[in-house]
Amino acid sequence: MAFAESAAIVFAIGLLGIVATYRQPRDLKPRFMFVLTVSSWFIIAVLSSLPFYLSDNGISITDALFEGTSGITTTGATVLTGLDTMDRDLLLWRSILQWIGGIGIIGMFVAVLPFLRVGGMRLFATESSEWTDKALPRMKTLSRGLLLVYVIFSVLAVTTYWLSGMTLFDAFNHGLTSIATGGFSTSDSSMGKFDSDLILLQGALFMMIGSMPFFLFVREMHGQRGVLWRDQQVRLFLTILLVVPALLTLHRWHVSVEEFDPIHGYVATLFNVTSVVTTTGYASEDYSAWGPLAFVLFFFLMFVGGCSGSTAGGMKIFRFQLSLIVLREQLMRLLHPRAVLTRNYNGRAVSDEIISSMIAYSFIFLLCLLLLTVALAALQLDFITSISGALTALTNVGPGLGAIIGPAGTFTSLPDAAKWILSVGMLMGRLEILSVVIVLSPAFWRS
Amino acid sequence: MAFAESAAIVFAIGLLGIVATYRQPRDLKPRFMFVLTVSSWFIIAVLSSLPFYLSDNGISITDALFEGTSGITTTGATVLTGLDTMDRDLLLWRSILQWIGGIGIIGMFVAVLPFLRVGGMRLFATESSEWTDKALPRMKTLSRGLLLVYVIFSVLAVTTYWLSGMTLFDAFNHGLTSIATGGFSTSDSSMGKFDSDLILLQGALFMMIGSMPFFLFVREMHGQRGVLWRDQQVRLFLTILLVVPALLTLHRWHVSVEEFDPIHGYVATLFNVTSVVTTTGYASEDYSAWGPLAFVLFFFLMFVGGCSGSTAGGMKIFRFQLSLIVLREQLMRLLHPRAVLTRNYNGRAVSDEIISSMIAYSFIFLLCLLLLTVALAALQLDFITSISGALTALTNVGPGLGAIIGPAGTFTSLPDAAKWILSVGMLMGRLEILSVVIVLSPAFWRS
Repeated sequence: MAFAESAAIVFAIGLLGIVATYRQPRDLKPRFMFVLTVSSWFIIAVLSSLPFYLSDNGISITDALFEGTSGITTTGATVLTGLDTMDRDLLLWRSILQWIGGIGIIGMFVAVLPFLRVGGMRLFATESSEWTDKALPRMKTLSRGLLLVYVIFSVLAVTTYWLSGMTLFDAFNHGLTSIATGGFSTSDSSMGKFDSDLILLQGALFMMIGSMPFFLFVREMHGQRGVLWRDQQVRLFLTILLVVPALLTLHRWHVSVEEFDPIHGYVATLFNVTSVVTTTGYASEDYSAWGPLAFVLFFFLMFVGGCSGSTAGGMKIFRFQLSLIVLREQLMRLLHPRAVLTRNYNGRAVSDEIISSMIAYSFIFLLCLLLLTVALAALQLDFITSISGALTALTNVGPGLGAIIGPAGTFTSLPDAAKWILSVGMLMGRLEILSVVIVLSPAFWRS
Repeated sequence: MAFAESAAIVFAIGLLGIVATYRQPRDLKPRFMFVLTVSSWFIIAVLSSLPFYLSDNGISITDALFEGTSGITTTGATVLTGLDTMDRDLLLWRSILQWIGGIGIIGMFVAVLPFLRVGGMRLFATESSEWTDKALPRMKTLSRGLLLVYVIFSVLAVTTYWLSGMTLFDAFNHGLTSIATGGFSTSDSSMGKFDSDLILLQGALFMMIGSMPFFLFVREMHGQRGVLWRDQQVRLFLTILLVVPALLTLHRWHVSVEEFDPIHGYVATLFNVTSVVTTTGYASEDYSAWGPLAFVLFFFLMFVGGCSGSTAGGMKIFRFQLSLIVLREQLMRLLHPRAVLTRNYNGRAVSDEIISSMIAYSFIFLLCLLLLTVALAALQLDFITSISGALTALTNVGPGLGAIIGPAGTFTSLPDAAKWILSVGMLMGRLEILSVVIVLSPAFWRS
């Protein structure tokens, strides 16, 4: 019933929208695109929460909105407990939301963001992001390719999990939420439920796939062999996932007072680090109890995020690489004031415009992190809950750190105001923040 | 004896230096200036620790170096306890170190940093920072003016404290370390020792003075009335100190379960917030126990720092203002792609060079914060101690947050390795980080 009611409401709203805008001229100016992009994500978040609210599970409006937003933004933070015994249709709805959110963000990356010149995204503009009549057919081919790749990897993930011992239902849910780097699970103990190193390794693999630039998969599929491995983003991303879990495992082994199984220790470290870096949000155990170094690393890794053009959130690898390029350039200029320097990223020249929009993004990201943290702390949430909650929302990771919202906790006990703040944070993070700020700025509406 | 021995060692080293470089050509190229600036701060830090080590107080080499570095960099973090009963000459030495460090950083700001084009400091370049023969007399006048203003304010602070009930010894020590925004005290309970709202208000005032651009005081003295109040840095700095303590006091009053005296509450909040923003590091009570909002605000305020050209550390107000200018520019550009925009700060055009060097500074600051935090956490220090310790060192604030190194604790119990890491952090922070990174870069030594 809840789903039928939700569908009826959404259908009615959709019909109203079509009638209201029928035969209106379609205006693809940046201004219109900004409003369309931002408003559609907010509206979809609200609509996707309907089944939670209308179901008979006693979920409040606030909780329903939080869960719906966390789903569609592929964050994976949850206010629901007792997942292991919950109605299967609600669990399925959560997974499907994340799967749709995942392909939604890939589509937005290809079709909208480079065009809007937000946050250095122009770096990934191709001829097909020009929105000219000539480019439209090329865009259609690309979109079809992206969807195909997304479906193939999802099917692969579901099948693999199934063959490794999950029930078909669990395999289906985790398959969708792995590729979408969403992180919703069918159990309160998340991926810890299966107690299987094999499944953790598979999970790590599928989260990695979900965090790589999907347009490069399409180009590989179209015969451009090797573009994936030559991509600077992918290389740094994989290097981080190669180096950090290995070193952290060694450190954990070194300082461990109890017996430490290095094989399982490495697998668990790899899985949970991958979960955070890819902004998925699964946990196989309470990694915030792994000691101070792990805690600090998980905190900083929450910023990183995956590659642009994937389902992952976070600040994205390429922004850190551009920052390093700016830093090196600056050091060279201090030593050789008259040197002529060129910037290159993935073999393309990086314009000043891209650098300054990347910087504006980073600054506003940190500013939002500050404001959200202060707002949460004003609600009497402790320092670690406030700052990790704000961060996990903005980066769409999922769990925060600490006893309350950490990998072993949930967002259930937070005050309603905090859930609203975090829901807005998740949507802002998903929309690369700047798009939201622009639509909210007075200058946007003035002229 | 300790002081006599120290003096003899320093004299011998100085003499050796003079003999070794006598009649050598003086080369004022950037490369030489970088080495000179960086190495002199490191050498002075080592030499200033000699009296601590050579005294009969059982202070280890590590502790002596930490205390000396904390002194000369005007940080104010301490490894010494039992200050109330400590030898007066050692207490005096700590205060004098901070006072010398304070005028040292003002001198470096005027004479060296704009010339080195580090971290956006070129924004404050005047004709007198050109190091030409023509500019030298003007530089001499300015230096004399700066020293005069520094001495006048110090005498004023000492006298005021004395008249308000401190002993002459306490007044002298706190007068020096207030103007130097150093934060060393003569008591383990810091400024809480005096239990006087009047003294806290005076302390706040003198810390604010120490955090304002001293070259503007000189220009005021030379008849350019109003330059101080027209300065954008000073305005934002004072606005922060007007707004934040007031709002935080209201919040503390609002959530307080015990009786809350609003007058004393405001004075204490103003004093401790000013202490952190000006990177002084006094405390009148354990403000990290004021609840989550205060904790979060103190954490973020540690980044801010005072005005450039003062004795304060931190990222400095002007860098946040430049970031806001970049952000606004970027938003305007997204809305009006063809608009011609100009950047202004304090009535002067801001070049791309200044923006990009400011950005390089911010990026390397955050990178150093990350590396220091990870290094401390690897020594098994908890998250809050690691991140606030790294931050308080880099910004030269003094105390960190949390139970160990917070305002009610000291750095005594940290492992030696952590003390070394923090000492290097303090020196890097004082040298605007980039100068150190440049001198350490292979490219610097290659050609």
